[in-house]
Amino acid sequence: MQFDLQHTDAKSRARAGTITTDHGQIQTPIFMPVGTAGTVKAVHQRELKEDIKAQIILGNTYHLYMRPGLDIIEQAGGLHKFNGWDKPILTDSGGYQVYSLADNRKIVEEGVHFQSHKDGSRHFFTPESIMDIQRTIGADIIMAFDECTPYPCEYDYAEKSMHMTNRWLDRCINRFDETEGKYGYSQTLFPIVQGSVYKDLRTQSAEYIASKEREGNAIGGLSVGEPAEDMYEMTDHVCGILPTDKPRYLMGVGTPANILECIALGVDMFDCVMPTRNARNGMLFTTQGIINIRNEKWKDDFTPIDPELGGYASTFYTKGYLRHLITSNEILGAQIASIQNLTFYLWLVGEARKQILNDNFASWKETMVKKVSQRL
Amino acid sequence: MQFDLQHTDAKSRARAGTITTDHGQIQTPIFMPVGTAGTVKAVHQRELKEDIKAQIILGNTYHLYMRPGLDIIEQAGGLHKFNGWDKPILTDSGGYQVYSLADNRKIVEEGVHFQSHKDGSRHFFTPESIMDIQRTIGADIIMAFDECTPYPCEYDYAEKSMHMTNRWLDRCINRFDETEGKYGYSQTLFPIVQGSVYKDLRTQSAEYIASKEREGNAIGGLSVGEPAEDMYEMTDHVCGILPTDKPRYLMGVGTPANILECIALGVDMFDCVMPTRNARNGMLFTTQGIINIRNEKWKDDFTPIDPELGGYASTFYTKGYLRHLITSNEILGAQIASIQNLTFYLWLVGEARKQILNDNFASWKETMVKKVSQRL
Repeated sequence: MQFDLQHTDAKSRARAGTITTDHGQIQTPIFMPVGTAGTVKAVHQRELKEDIKAQIILGNTYHLYMRPGLDIIEQAGGLHKFNGWDKPILTDSGGYQVYSLADNRKIVEEGVHFQSHKDGSRHFFTPESIMDIQRTIGADIIMAFDECTPYPCEYDYAEKSMHMTNRWLDRCINRFDETEGKYGYSQTLFPIVQGSVYKDLRTQSAEYIASKEREGNAIGGLSVGEPAEDMYEMTDHVCGILPTDKPRYLMGVGTPANILECIALGVDMFDCVMPTRNARNGMLFTTQGIINIRNEKWKDDFTPIDPELGGYASTFYTKGYLRHLITSNEILGAQIASIQNLTFYLWLVGEARKQILNDNFASWKETMVKKVSQRL
Repeated sequence: MQFDLQHTDAKSRARAGTITTDHGQIQTPIFMPVGTAGTVKAVHQRELKEDIKAQIILGNTYHLYMRPGLDIIEQAGGLHKFNGWDKPILTDSGGYQVYSLADNRKIVEEGVHFQSHKDGSRHFFTPESIMDIQRTIGADIIMAFDECTPYPCEYDYAEKSMHMTNRWLDRCINRFDETEGKYGYSQTLFPIVQGSVYKDLRTQSAEYIASKEREGNAIGGLSVGEPAEDMYEMTDHVCGILPTDKPRYLMGVGTPANILECIALGVDMFDCVMPTRNARNGMLFTTQGIINIRNEKWKDDFTPIDPELGGYASTFYTKGYLRHLITSNEILGAQIASIQNLTFYLWLVGEARKQILNDNFASWKETMVKKVSQRL
């Protein structure tokens, strides 16, 4: 993997760059649609490519390990071959789902014991097994196995956890560096900064992660319930420590406003279930602001969903029709809203990139944060 | 509406024709995907047109009347404008849903009292109100308000019901002929033959319906649980009475084999929820036969779903991937399987048409019925 930093905004730390993987290039800043179980929910692969213009998607190691299982993915020739997405893929480490979904989890130095939330089966994840699993899934970018601390989190717990995450990182790196990709293309490993909302822990963690000199770095443990100000403060602080010549990935963030603010702080990569999950509940992100399409006011609005955004779903279907579909629990409603929201997220980071290249990001961001946050 | 009968097969009663409406032409024999509440479930409008190659879709009057409601459809400018489908639409009369879905229904000479299955609200449908409702929905082809008798059905009940359906037909025709389409294009009314599985009742009904000389005729009250032999016998009998120069629509039929057999008997139009409903449950109709994609045997089959059928969904996605999606209850599974099944149904009637035009339908049908009915 290669990262070329092309430009940094004149009045912020916002950056424009290009990541090159064996499955193609990614223009940063970028948003990565979440394809939990090998599918971005309610969206066809060609829609991801042609309508949404996604450049990289995410897969969840926990879900893929449970279903369809590693044997199937390996027989298919890796996740790209299995789901037909031939552009870059990033997988998380599965840790977040173990902590948020699984039953009877027990974290020990060696790894994490847990039971499947689906069938109660018992499993044990270790830094080494998670590297092997992600080798088999075959994502271009894979994540270190960490503990994502909840919010709020006691200082002592956060400190101990962060040190364990660091020890686990060493084990991840050892295993990763002594193994190879299975399908003829290269993979890269991103370590993850932890430390909850404690600045000194974040400093220690970021310095440790930076010292490993991997090809990219991630910031975890944020967007887990803390105030946005804390998230911004920690992100700002960590971005000041992580090397500038490598991409920075802020995990699980966030609203359109969160993304714009964190681009300004020097983040290059984002992922979040919000655009797809909220779409299925009828919350639309548009170039004009946020729409709750279930609201009665849209029932006889026969204007296109988001004409300024462009594209099939946003210009062909009307707000009134989409409201009918969503309130009637019709699958097509989830399909249309998911395309709308993801197209908007990709548009937003693409516009941010243009503004960065024009040294106009900071002032554009101020206007845009207000616009995309307003409720219509 | 105009119907041009182009050719009748040399060795069966199978016919190839063209129906012309103000929203375009339909090549018969044709299958009409069911778009219950203004959406063919899990399928985008452009997929219906470009991938599935649907020429006409169905709308359900009962569902559309309940949601979004007539005021919204009228404000949108009719169903075509509301859902963006600009090719022909046919609406049923709502009667079938009143009998199968609604609560506390009471049939009287004047019409049917019932309560909504969704919110318990009370409603009263009459032949006149159903004409007005379908005028407002704005389908190109609308159906008479009938009673669809269940199976089994006592002879006395079937006889009385058939006579009431005939009286209701007169009221439908009176109301229809004294009103006009609301949106600047013409609509046409199809009467419906009833009579359960009693040949003499079917004779009376078909003769009565034929005497009305409408632009097309429908056969109802079949595919409601009776043996396939009874369905074929009644269809054969009724097709012998209905005029040859008008399209014949067999309502709610059926499996691929049912459709081929009834084309041979002289039916021109079909609709059924089977391809979409069964798709969502993992049952695939393919050019090679029927697949239960939930079956373990498909989990590591990484061949395309139906390469011979062609098209995006059938050639891009593999059986193993689709099995994973369906068993994981992923929306994309319903999307892919729905496109596969509808594309297959439209391909099947298109192939039938070619064979009819080549005077080769009867023998092709014998081979094809076996092929499309076999379980893979």
